[in-house]
Amino acid sequence: MEKDTRLILALDVLDSAEALRISQVVAGHVDAIKVGYPLILATGLGIITELSRYAPIIADFKVADIPNTNRLICEQVFKAGADAVIVQGFTGHDSLRTSVEVARSNNKDIFVVTEMSHPGALDFMQAAGEAIAKMAADEQASGVVAPATRPERVRDIRNIIGSDLTIISPGVGTQGGSAADAIRAGADWVIVGRSIYQSDDPAAVAAKLVSEIKEVI
Amino acid sequence: MEKDTRLILALDVLDSAEALRISQVVAGHVDAIKVGYPLILATGLGIITELSRYAPIIADFKVADIPNTNRLICEQVFKAGADAVIVQGFTGHDSLRTSVEVARSNNKDIFVVTEMSHPGALDFMQAAGEAIAKMAADEQASGVVAPATRPERVRDIRNIIGSDLTIISPGVGTQGGSAADAIRAGADWVIVGRSIYQSDDPAAVAAKLVSEIKEVI
Repeated sequence: MEKDTRLILALDVLDSAEALRISQVVAGHVDAIKVGYPLILATGLGIITELSRYAPIIADFKVADIPNTNRLICEQVFKAGADAVIVQGFTGHDSLRTSVEVARSNNKDIFVVTEMSHPGALDFMQAAGEAIAKMAADEQASGVVAPATRPERVRDIRNIIGSDLTIISPGVGTQGGSAADAIRAGADWVIVGRSIYQSDDPAAVAAKLVSEIKEVI
Repeated sequence: MEKDTRLILALDVLDSAEALRISQVVAGHVDAIKVGYPLILATGLGIITELSRYAPIIADFKVADIPNTNRLICEQVFKAGADAVIVQGFTGHDSLRTSVEVARSNNKDIFVVTEMSHPGALDFMQAAGEAIAKMAADEQASGVVAPATRPERVRDIRNIIGSDLTIISPGVGTQGGSAADAIRAGADWVIVGRSIYQSDDPAAVAAKLVSEIKEVI
């Protein structure tokens, strides 16, 4: 995943034709496209292969299982052509380690969720966020996911993981986070969904975000 | 899901033909068949529809996302013909609540992972297990998943959730748990995988487990 525009599209649509159409028009403005299980369940794993013609694909599956199941999931997703898989950290070091091993043997990336920004994340995840970030560094994941809606947390997480790991940061746009603030706080990439794919002109919105980012780097 | 044999098959294979063959021969001995993402990614969501001809299907997806993504996943899985979805509790009350709402409106079930038995589960999940079990009861999930490898924990979880929720309990057989011990400790169903589907005679192994269970109920 080359660091150029620093923008990642969260392609949270359910229709294959729509996914391909949007990806084609924004491809020049994003460094990667993030897809989730809803799209994969609706269309099949092959959509990753198709979308990977436009940009590197991040499979945001929040994998949260025992080591062997994490392995079986990651193997298939990389084989389909994804460049990275997002896994949950709360299932512990061995589940993460196995995922990282699979990624490394395929020359691909694992990103670890440290904390999330929905209200329920305060119930159990928030308290574990920093320990999970540390674990991600210890297990040599490629990076972590940290919310752009809380730039101060992006800064905290950056201090914990150091400079070897990257931070990808969702929550920009409709959810209220600012791309510039997240990048200034230490995010390597910001992840934007609805404000791009629900726009009448997805490429223009993406281009505008890229110029906002360029101003602060 | 009718409580009859109290046995659930964990169908952790990757091949569609093998999945169908095993399901057909053990169908008379199990109350449900549990499938995971590795099989779905390899074959497509339609395998759930096909397998549901043999037994109620539990989609063990350990769903661990924000409420809206949990909703989109559960909707598709129930529509494909699954009777239940297993979700992680770690992502908090709103993610769980949304999943339960989708299940209820489809007259289906949600089971919540309280704790897991791989070593990494001690890192973050173990400490939250009882609070997650309580949350599952508060949010009126259908039941929880608790490890048969630790019958004393099944008993603790039963005391927390009371009698309204059911317990499904993996870890019997190859992983070392005893079906009879788990049922005696308060599990409603035990989940068995490899000892059945890797056997030369899956139906005979399943039948033997069912008689072991019948002896203690």
